[in-house]
Amino acid sequence: MAKDEIIFQTIGMIHSPHQELTGMPIQPASAAGVKGTVVVDPAFEEGLKDLDGFSHVILVYYFHQAKLADLLVKPFLDDEKHGVFATRAPRRPNGIGISVVKLLVVEGNMLRVENLDVLDGTPLLDIKPYVPDFDKQEGVRIGWLEQSRGEIDKKMSDNRFID
Amino acid sequence: MAKDEIIFQTIGMIHSPHQELTGMPIQPASAAGVKGTVVVDPAFEEGLKDLDGFSHVILVYYFHQAKLADLLVKPFLDDEKHGVFATRAPRRPNGIGISVVKLLVVEGNMLRVENLDVLDGTPLLDIKPYVPDFDKQEGVRIGWLEQSRGEIDKKMSDNRFID
Repeated sequence: MAKDEIIFQTIGMIHSPHQELTGMPIQPASAAGVKGTVVVDPAFEEGLKDLDGFSHVILVYYFHQAKLADLLVKPFLDDEKHGVFATRAPRRPNGIGISVVKLLVVEGNMLRVENLDVLDGTPLLDIKPYVPDFDKQEGVRIGWLEQSRGEIDKKMSDNRFID
Repeated sequence: MAKDEIIFQTIGMIHSPHQELTGMPIQPASAAGVKGTVVVDPAFEEGLKDLDGFSHVILVYYFHQAKLADLLVKPFLDDEKHGVFATRAPRRPNGIGISVVKLLVVEGNMLRVENLDVLDGTPLLDIKPYVPDFDKQEGVRIGWLEQSRGEIDKKMSDNRFID
């Protein structure tokens, strides 16, 4: 199978209080109350029309500080190695990150958001409305993560994915 | 703000019964029971280790048939124009699609999945485990989509995003 290249462009930037890869929340659930802003390039501002009716948005972004890819990783919530596609670790073959955050307000080309687990200065690729009918599943099994569920809301990152 | 280019590579391909952009389910909720396969390039097979413990996965893929971007779109569920970032329409500045599907089984480098709303031959960018603690939100408002909720599970696509 040919490994075709696909070129995307940064459409904005995510600003957060998280300045370092270590000691930051590993997921929105561990970033409760953390506020930040998403600045969309003015060329795309028209695309934000009616977004303010949604309480939560899916931020799609580029893990710009995690350029190496590992196929087996020790995620923050375990000390065993798992396949990278069975984890949300940042060092992936394509460094695409997804976070569902609370949308506080849209002001022009800027979104104020909460529960933000993203590093300051992260390049933004897309914004999608979070829609439970599309995105929410019931009767879910979560494999190796089951044993770590109690830690998710208090776990912070360490230096394991720093190049 | 500089529009930096970010280059990703196809890591596999999604195979589904959906051969045409018209008349296909617009979301996993309207693709109940539709089965398909996700074939990961053998070079990345090791990254699938332990994925079989998860009941649902997030497929991240490239809307390869929707190359033009519109900032205002009429989504399948409405006849009013909304900002593209307030919709899940395929014709986006960066054509990144996200679908949460049911994982039936992992066989080597192949995943059998269900509730598949993706066009046959779609390039795969990433697979992530679906984890309710990370991805599921409560107390959600869904803006303009509220009036269309009853249609989501039976709505099929038409030709509005065909170039």
